[in-house]
Amino acid sequence: MSLRFEAALSACTEDMVRELEIVLPNSDGAESRLHEAMHYAALAGGKRLRAFLVLQCASLFGVSRSSALRVAAAIELIHTYSLVHDDLPCMDDDDVRRGQPTVHIKYDQATAVLTGDALLTLAFEILGDESYQADPAIRARLVVAMAKAAGPQGMVAGQMIDLASEDVAEPNVQHITRLQQLKTGALIAVSCEAGAILGRASEHQFLALHAYAHDLGLAFQIVDDILDTEGDAEAMGKAVNKDSERGKATFVSVLGIERARTQARMLADQAAKHLEPFAEKADLLKDLANFVIERRN
Amino acid sequence: MSLRFEAALSACTEDMVRELEIVLPNSDGAESRLHEAMHYAALAGGKRLRAFLVLQCASLFGVSRSSALRVAAAIELIHTYSLVHDDLPCMDDDDVRRGQPTVHIKYDQATAVLTGDALLTLAFEILGDESYQADPAIRARLVVAMAKAAGPQGMVAGQMIDLASEDVAEPNVQHITRLQQLKTGALIAVSCEAGAILGRASEHQFLALHAYAHDLGLAFQIVDDILDTEGDAEAMGKAVNKDSERGKATFVSVLGIERARTQARMLADQAAKHLEPFAEKADLLKDLANFVIERRN
Repeated sequence: MSLRFEAALSACTEDMVRELEIVLPNSDGAESRLHEAMHYAALAGGKRLRAFLVLQCASLFGVSRSSALRVAAAIELIHTYSLVHDDLPCMDDDDVRRGQPTVHIKYDQATAVLTGDALLTLAFEILGDESYQADPAIRARLVVAMAKAAGPQGMVAGQMIDLASEDVAEPNVQHITRLQQLKTGALIAVSCEAGAILGRASEHQFLALHAYAHDLGLAFQIVDDILDTEGDAEAMGKAVNKDSERGKATFVSVLGIERARTQARMLADQAAKHLEPFAEKADLLKDLANFVIERRN
Repeated sequence: MSLRFEAALSACTEDMVRELEIVLPNSDGAESRLHEAMHYAALAGGKRLRAFLVLQCASLFGVSRSSALRVAAAIELIHTYSLVHDDLPCMDDDDVRRGQPTVHIKYDQATAVLTGDALLTLAFEILGDESYQADPAIRARLVVAMAKAAGPQGMVAGQMIDLASEDVAEPNVQHITRLQQLKTGALIAVSCEAGAILGRASEHQFLALHAYAHDLGLAFQIVDDILDTEGDAEAMGKAVNKDSERGKATFVSVLGIERARTQARMLADQAAKHLEPFAEKADLLKDLANFVIERRN
C-alpha cells in the first residue's frame, strides 16, 4: 500500500465520520433510541470503500470535496442499512459486525428494522437536498441512480437471490457473478457513477468508470469469498465460513481457491487499465484496485 | 357519501391499481419472488386515502392527472412498505391485513423485510425520474418532502415511539397526538403537500392545505382508534382491539369514546374550513373529511 494511498484512505475515513455526524439526526425525545441506533450502525467503522470511490471519481472532474462528501455519506448510509437488515435473524442471522454486536443484538429486532428503514430514507433526503449541489437536475439524477442500484432490480434483488441460493442445484460461476453484481456490485458501480454525475462526465468517461467499477466490484467479492474461506474471524470482525456451512456456493467453491486468486488479480489489473483515459489523475483509484485484492479483512 | 365523492374515490382506486401495475417490476429470474411479493403487498386493496389526497390537491392547481397519479403511486408504495414492516413478528406481529395474509405469512419474514425495502427504494426512483415531470427542481423537492415525512424524524420515528408506548407510565393526549402526527399524520400531510408542490402552490395555499391535512390526519386516527375499540375484525380486514390488549394508550383510552367522537367531528369540520380559499374546487376534499369520520373500516 503506497503512503499516498494510505493517507488518502484514512483522510476519507476521518472525513466520513465527521460528515455522518453532521447528517445523522439527534434528539432527546422518545425517538432517541432510533437515532442512537442509527449513529451506532453508521459510525461502527468499516473500510468506507464506497465513499472513497465517490470522492476519488468526483475529484477526477474537480468536484468540490464538500459536495462529494455529502453524496458519499448518503451511499454509506445505504450500505449500512443493507448490513443492518442483512444481519437480522430472519436473514443472515449475524451477531457480530465490524467486531461489535449487530444492531438487533445491541438493541432489538424491531429497532434494527426501523434503523435500516430510517438510514435508507435519510439517504434520499440528503441526495435531494439543495445544500450540497445547486443544480436540481444533478440531484434528481443522483436519486434515480442510487434508487436503481439499491432497489428491486439492484441490491435488494441480489439479497433475495442470495437467500434462495442454498436451493440452487448446480450453482455455476454465471449464477454467482450475477448474484454478486446485484448484491454488492450495483452499489460499488453507483459510487463511481455518482462521482461522474457530480462532475458532469462525458459519455466516454462514464463508460470508463463503469467498466472500472464492474471489474473492481467482482475482484472485491472474490477476495471476500477467499477471506471467508481462509477464515480469520478476528481480522474480519465478523463470523466467517458461514456460506459454506450453509451450503451456499461462492466463487471459491465453484472456482477453487487458486483460480479464484488468479481471477481476482486479473480483474484488478483490468480495472486499473480502464482508467487510462484519466492518466495519473486516477492513480489513487488504481492503487485501490490493488488494495482490494491485497487486503486481509 | 355523495355520489360524486363515491365516483371520485372509486376512480382513484382503479387508476391506482393500473398505475401501480405500471411502476412495479416484473421478472422471471431468481428475484421473481421479491417482485411477486411487491405486487401482492401493493395491490392488496386499501382505501388509497393518500393517493386520493395527492390527486385532489394536485387538481386544485390544474396539474395533469397522469403526473399526479405517478406521485400518488410513490406515496402508496411508501405507505405499503410501512405496513409490511409494521406487520412483522418483531414489530406489531399481525397475520392479516386487508383481509389477506400479511407478507411474512404468505411468503416469509426475510421476503417481507426485503419487500418493504424494495417498495421504499422504488418510491424514490419514481419521484426522481423525469417521466412524469420535466422540472427537476419539483422532482428534487418531492424527494426531500417525502423522505422527511417518512424518515427518522417522521413516520419511522412515530413507529419507534409507538413500540415504546407500552412503557409510558401516564400517557396523555399530547403524547398520543405527537405519536400519531409522526406515525400517520406526516404521510397524510405530505400527500397534500405533494399535490401543492406539483401545482406550484403559493405559500398561502400551502399553509391552507397543510392545516387541512393536519386536522384530517388526526380525525382519521381518532376514528381508527374508535373502530379498533368497537372491534369488527371482519369489516376492518385486520385484527382489532390489539392496542388495548397490549396496554397501549389510544385516543379512546385517554379521552373516552364519547369525547373521542366529538373531537373527531370537530377536527373534520375544522379541516373542511381550512379549504375555504379554494371555494367549490375543494368540495371533494371537504367530502373526504366527512367520509373519514363516517367510515366503518
